[in-house]
Order: sequence, then structure tokens, then C-alpha cells
Amino acid sequence: MQNEILQALAARKSVRVFTDEPVTAEERAAILEGAFQAPTAGCQQLYTILDITDPALRHTLADLCDHQPFIEKAALCLVFLADCRRWPLAYRAAGLQPRDPGPGDLLLAVADACIAAQNAVTAAESLGIGSCYIGDVLENAEAMRDALHLPDHVVPACMLVFGRPTDQQKARPKPARFAEAAVVCENTYRDRTGEELRQDFACRAAAGSQVDFDFDRYIQAFCKRKYESDFSREMSRSAAVYLRAFL
Amino acid sequence: MQNEILQALAARKSVRVFTDEPVTAEERAAILEGAFQAPTAGCQQLYTILDITDPALRHTLADLCDHQPFIEKAALCLVFLADCRRWPLAYRAAGLQPRDPGPGDLLLAVADACIAAQNAVTAAESLGIGSCYIGDVLENAEAMRDALHLPDHVVPACMLVFGRPTDQQKARPKPARFAEAAVVCENTYRDRTGEELRQDFACRAAAGSQVDFDFDRYIQAFCKRKYESDFSREMSRSAAVYLRAFL
Repeated sequence: MQNEILQALAARKSVRVFTDEPVTAEERAAILEGAFQAPTAGCQQLYTILDITDPALRHTLADLCDHQPFIEKAALCLVFLADCRRWPLAYRAAGLQPRDPGPGDLLLAVADACIAAQNAVTAAESLGIGSCYIGDVLENAEAMRDALHLPDHVVPACMLVFGRPTDQQKARPKPARFAEAAVVCENTYRDRTGEELRQDFACRAAAGSQVDFDFDRYIQAFCKRKYESDFSREMSRSAAVYLRAFL
Repeated sequence: MQNEILQALAARKSVRVFTDEPVTAEERAAILEGAFQAPTAGCQQLYTILDITDPALRHTLADLCDHQPFIEKAALCLVFLADCRRWPLAYRAAGLQPRDPGPGDLLLAVADACIAAQNAVTAAESLGIGSCYIGDVLENAEAMRDALHLPDHVVPACMLVFGRPTDQQKARPKPARFAEAAVVCENTYRDRTGEELRQDFACRAAAGSQVDFDFDRYIQAFCKRKYESDFSREMSRSAAVYLRAFL
């Protein structure tokens, strides 16, 4: 099946190098409106979006997010916060004494924030504006709270940078995804066997026209560079700091 | 600004009553492909999608998700699991002994799963297929793990049901969202004051053509029905069960 929207979803890829062209106020408004129009639990919009316009704060963020200078150069930078604070404040404003938010409220708000963020990505893409998620926004909880003035019960869910892709970025092939069998189960969860995993990764490499794919070499390098990296360990340490307020 | 994609994002609303028309195999494939093509951290696709086809399991899920029978009647029902298990299994298959996943891995995978889910929503919408998120999938961790055979480090991030909207559902107005000022801050987080919250909710009510909106009455009823409900407390109890495996 094909239509303009399916094609746009398939064509969208992350952009990390931007031209100097700004995102206009109208474009920014359309991107935010896309986010607001996303599905949201009980129509609560359990997020707050920080629009990071201050160059010094951008610099700090770039540093706190595993030192990625392209964050500073993006035309627009939005932090999507899972906000478990606004509604309880409204309850208090109406004279109630609500319970403290718990881990269920947090996970629901993280989902809400990410669902809104992905609509922002799709809206931007429709305007020729590229984007990139920065998962590293979860790191360095203490410094991040300081920099963004985050109170308890307000947690970064994801961060997005936006800008127009350079020609080199436009030409970059989109990385291939796994085949359905690798990520979809019917009814109940089942572990992939070692043999199946080898096949899943080989299929993905073939779909990406990679020749001479070596599972062991690739996985060992990936594990070292990502899962066992300093930033990945920091992400879990930092996430535990945020979680503590909910437990 | 307007284009076909922005219009589709703005028009999309949740659908809870479906016609009997099935979702075809081609439509299902297009919805899943939309999800796969979503941005994903390090191209890892940190999710597993369960396609719930078994009527008995659908019945169980409808029951576990706060007794919502329309879950049984949907043409397609997908559970998006944050999967912190598949990549460590691949690391093991390559002879490594990876660390246990931590809370950072979980939050990153929840984001990944919800970002993919929202692309599935947008893909479905482009085919005239409505959808509804079921946040309640976070509840009843023990029974849910049993029903879906979830091992440790695999956590429901969200659930989606899909189907064609009835005419009544098509005619239903989409609930109004908050204005930008209510959910966007420049640079740093700031609490809304009680007065601002009253205004935020009044503006939203006016945008939804609600007359005689009474903040205190609305908020008190909403708090009782949602935040202080049994299902909301259950969600946090249950989420804590899932989190325990990561702490």
C-alpha cells in the first residue's frame, strides 16, 4: 500500500547536520501544533515542552548530552518533559490534596511526551525540516535539573533538534530496519534464539546492502560502543535519580 | 501553515467504536511498516510488538485493562513492549556477558516503543483506520506477565487497538487541546500559578465550545474519576513491579 503519508514515514531519517536556514515562527508553530494534536491520555497532555532558545543553555545541553555540538547548531531544540506535576497543581488549585505521583504516572507521562514528540517529527518532516532525537537527555540528572530548573516529578522523556538537512544529509541512506519476524510476535512474547538473532541481523545487513556482514564482530563492537559505554551506564545511574522521586 | 500531513495529524482522534470491517493483511503490514520506519535509538528498535489475534487472550487483555470490552472488538490489537532483552541476548549470542539492563535502558526503550507506536497510528489514519491507545496495559503486572509470557526486562509501554470508525465516532468532535502557553516554556521549567491554571483550563474549555465551564467542579470530578481512581493507583503499584527488575 502507498500514499503520501506512508511515503513520508518511510522516507524520514535522522538529520544531524543542518544548513543555517532558520525555522520560521510559522513552522515552529506548526511543529508544536502537531505535538499538541497527538493522542494523549485522558486529554491531559502530560508533558511540558521546553523550547531552548538561549545559546548558553544550548551549549550546556550539548555538553550534558554526551558532548554533541550539533545540538547547538540546530534551528530549533525542544525538550519533551514527562510532567507529573501540572495536574496535581491544578488539583491543589481546586482545593484538593492529591496523592504523590507514582511510577505508573511517570511511565504514562513518558509515553504521552514521546507520542507528542513523534507527531512533532512528522509535522516537521512535512515542512522539509529534519530532526534528531537525543536520548542522552536522560543523562546527568543533577546537572540537567539545575540547568532546566526541573522540580521533582518532571523528567526529560526525550529531546529533539530540528533544522534543514544539508545536501550530504539528504543523500545519506536511511539505515535498514529489522524484518517483521525479528520484532513482532503473535499473542505472546518469545525469545529469539541465538540462531534466529544471527539471521535477524544478517537480514537487516542485507536489506542495507551491507556485504561481508560479520555478526560477532558487529555485535561485539556495537556492545562496546553503546551498551557498555560510559554514556549508557550514566543514563541508568541518572534515570535512577529521577525515578527515586516516584518510588 | 497547511499541508496534507499537518491536516491528518490535526484531524486524528481516538476511536473506541469500530465497524465489523477487518483490517486487511496489506493494511496491517503498512501499519507495522510505519512503526518500523520510526526513529529509533541507535537503530536498535528497542521494542517487541505483540499482535494479539487470539480471542481468549483479547478477552483477558480487555479485562486486565480496566474492563474495556471494545478492546475485544477491535480489528487489530498491538501491544508495544519496551524490550531490554533482545539486544543483551544478541550480545550473549556473540559470546559476551553484558551487564543487566538498568532504568536508563528501560526509559529509552519505552520512548522507542511509543515513538514507533505513534507512527503506527499515523500510518493507520492515512488508510482510514482509527486507533486508540490503552494506557491501562501498564496495570496488573503479574497477570499481564502471565498472559503475555513477559520475561524480566520486557515491559508494556503502550497498547493500541485499531479499526474502522463508526459514523457516530467520525462525527464526534475532537477534544480541544491546551494553548501553547499552558504547555511550552522558554528555556527553563516554571510552574503554572493557580490563576494561570484556571485560565489554561478555561481557554481549553472555550476552544472546545464548552459553556459555563466551572474549574473547581471540573477538576474535582476529573481528579476523582482519574487520578484518585482505583485503576490509576493500580497503575503505579503495577509499574513498580516492572521497575523492580531494573533497580
